[in-house]
Amino acid sequence: MKKLNTSPISGTQELLPSAQFIFDNLKEKIKNTYKSHGFLNIETPILERTEVLFAKAGGDTEKQIYEVKKTGEEGDKKADEALRFDHTVPLARYIVEHENDLSFPFKVSQIGENFRGERAQRGRFREFYQCDVDIVGRNSLPIFYDADIIDTLIDAYQGFELKTPVIARISNRKILKGFLEGLNLEDKSKDISSIIDHSEKVPLEKTKENLAEIGLTKDAQSRILQFIDLSGDIDQVTSGLQAFGIESQTLKEGIDELTEVINILKSSGHEGKIRADLRIIRGLDYYTGTVFEFAMPEHPEIGSIGGGGRYDNLTGYFSDQKFPGVGGSIGLNRLFYILSEKNLLKITPENPLDYAVIPISSQEVPYALEVAKDLRARGASVTILPNDKKLSQSLTHASKITKNAIVLGEEEVKNKSYEIKRFK
Amino acid sequence: MKKLNTSPISGTQELLPSAQFIFDNLKEKIKNTYKSHGFLNIETPILERTEVLFAKAGGDTEKQIYEVKKTGEEGDKKADEALRFDHTVPLARYIVEHENDLSFPFKVSQIGENFRGERAQRGRFREFYQCDVDIVGRNSLPIFYDADIIDTLIDAYQGFELKTPVIARISNRKILKGFLEGLNLEDKSKDISSIIDHSEKVPLEKTKENLAEIGLTKDAQSRILQFIDLSGDIDQVTSGLQAFGIESQTLKEGIDELTEVINILKSSGHEGKIRADLRIIRGLDYYTGTVFEFAMPEHPEIGSIGGGGRYDNLTGYFSDQKFPGVGGSIGLNRLFYILSEKNLLKITPENPLDYAVIPISSQEVPYALEVAKDLRARGASVTILPNDKKLSQSLTHASKITKNAIVLGEEEVKNKSYEIKRFK
Repeated sequence: MKKLNTSPISGTQELLPSAQFIFDNLKEKIKNTYKSHGFLNIETPILERTEVLFAKAGGDTEKQIYEVKKTGEEGDKKADEALRFDHTVPLARYIVEHENDLSFPFKVSQIGENFRGERAQRGRFREFYQCDVDIVGRNSLPIFYDADIIDTLIDAYQGFELKTPVIARISNRKILKGFLEGLNLEDKSKDISSIIDHSEKVPLEKTKENLAEIGLTKDAQSRILQFIDLSGDIDQVTSGLQAFGIESQTLKEGIDELTEVINILKSSGHEGKIRADLRIIRGLDYYTGTVFEFAMPEHPEIGSIGGGGRYDNLTGYFSDQKFPGVGGSIGLNRLFYILSEKNLLKITPENPLDYAVIPISSQEVPYALEVAKDLRARGASVTILPNDKKLSQSLTHASKITKNAIVLGEEEVKNKSYEIKRFK
Repeated sequence: MKKLNTSPISGTQELLPSAQFIFDNLKEKIKNTYKSHGFLNIETPILERTEVLFAKAGGDTEKQIYEVKKTGEEGDKKADEALRFDHTVPLARYIVEHENDLSFPFKVSQIGENFRGERAQRGRFREFYQCDVDIVGRNSLPIFYDADIIDTLIDAYQGFELKTPVIARISNRKILKGFLEGLNLEDKSKDISSIIDHSEKVPLEKTKENLAEIGLTKDAQSRILQFIDLSGDIDQVTSGLQAFGIESQTLKEGIDELTEVINILKSSGHEGKIRADLRIIRGLDYYTGTVFEFAMPEHPEIGSIGGGGRYDNLTGYFSDQKFPGVGGSIGLNRLFYILSEKNLLKITPENPLDYAVIPISSQEVPYALEVAKDLRARGASVTILPNDKKLSQSLTHASKITKNAIVLGEEEVKNKSYEIKRFK
């Protein structure tokens, strides 16, 4: 009989060992890809000063921060520690704190849990792994690195060996900015950005309505709808943009940067995995140039499965020194949840262990230890099951946890031999 | 100029990338050892129901639990979520919750962060990685598994390739229990255990005083001092115990179990890395049989660097079903702190990356991407540094982050060749 509620808290992930094995495997693959692309791994604490987190948080995030308090402390004391809600704020703090011990551009990866008190919902997590890569320069940072981040993430998704393709949709914030300047709509840029950002989740008519509601003329509406429809090869997108006949230095800069990023990714052999796509905005305010999202074109209902972009100044809240950067992130729990639910993973749960060695009696234990050691030295995972019950019971248990059993009796010890029984 | 305090919170670990590389490496080694010994990995959430954590916590722990509260919530609401302070309580909850989906004995590993609001102190952490292995049976669990846990941890410490040996000091709670029964001192067993537990950190005279203070006769004092001095080979320890002439079934059981554990570990080739040692008690109440601690004999000042033991009933707070188990744990942050401070790690911080590929101009970028891809396919970690400044500056940066540089100019592109420059 259960004495207490033993279910995990809603919005957290708790897996059985076979599913955990796959989750760990994906995390491992991300880690290895990030490392192979030259990112140095760091880990900031989960506990942060509340004032550090509030320096950047805003809007909804501010209400979602988990503050912590020791059970011994008085009830009315203001919490001065809280749980980090992303890796970006701690990274900014880390860079300002350790600036003199780092060499720039600083290519850095962070894989760890973040916490947000979101309303619980299927596939939404309040405790979740984010797997981030960032490249941070001191004062300046070449556009090459924008491509470097996307290149790395393409390889990471590639490493998952999914049943469905993944592509990077890439744009540049300067393009929309220059475009709106050309149409004399800069003052509505925030509203328009938000409408574009949501345009994929609503019918076309609704987007038109939204644009009309903020006071856009029919002509402006139709230009914006044309604009966000520009996607595909960079040359198409560029000539589509030129057809508007807009003269703007910002627009030109945006097109040049986007072209450079796309060309580098083509040189990297990713032609089929990228597309220029002017509908990509990214919600967050702090992006200033390149923006990108990853998607599965065969599953448009899923939407973005990761993304990122270029920011002009990471550390403005902490220091007067300027650190421009570019970064991207994979939200692993949501991704794993989706991939499992839609059955898009080629690997499926199975027994993670290679061998169970079963000594029939205590006489065979020393030889079992020897066999196990030998198999481990060859890279296998091996458990020893002392046969305290019936052999059939030990074999049933073995079949539930491993792929193979090795039963050792007197004969095997005498001959220093063993036979492998494969479970199917 | 800094605008905010950017240092990490005291009692948390924040490393530069080169030290983080070594820390990650140790964690990786532990994970691989646990896996090779047939442990299935799981991860419970860091966020737990407060009532679940309080079910087991007691004494100091109770005052050290971090409760969490969303910033949006009212100040006077009682927190019903908190951060886990160890892996044992969540494991008990996990086993009761998922019992029907698990096969027993359940060999399980957990590597993750725990949180305790301890007073900040050098080498003490409030947020720390614990790397646990546990084997949990349903109703019963053979003694073999006690040896299995110790065997696994010996291999884990072995994997660190330290400059100094590590040994397992092993005892069994039933031995002290039976011994005290024989001396008619059962009623003082809690005090005596605590005095023995502290006896290594204080002079011999102080231990005598402590024993006298709780009312022990000179004779009882000297027997206990003789008792805790018994250590070394199991045969010596056994004959030392027999010399007391005590008849006790509990004592006999303890000796038998300890002998079995030691003999299995000898069969496993660990003779030089283990010793029977009756001074080992382990502070926690819930141990009922085998107890062990790992130590570095050349550095007695360090004390225990990990340990564990057998518990009769893991899940008593959550269920009426009985789940006996045996487990052990390595506290990774404290261990890493000590090993670094005492310079006991053979690996020392160095540049973790293998290659920096430097294209002299944008003309060479495509070839640089090709070279990088080729090296990555062979398992190397490679970063590309677009040479936007002087080549000497790029090389200086490269020397700070990698072991080798590959500079690519027109010649290299034409000949499809490259030269590796090694930094020493």
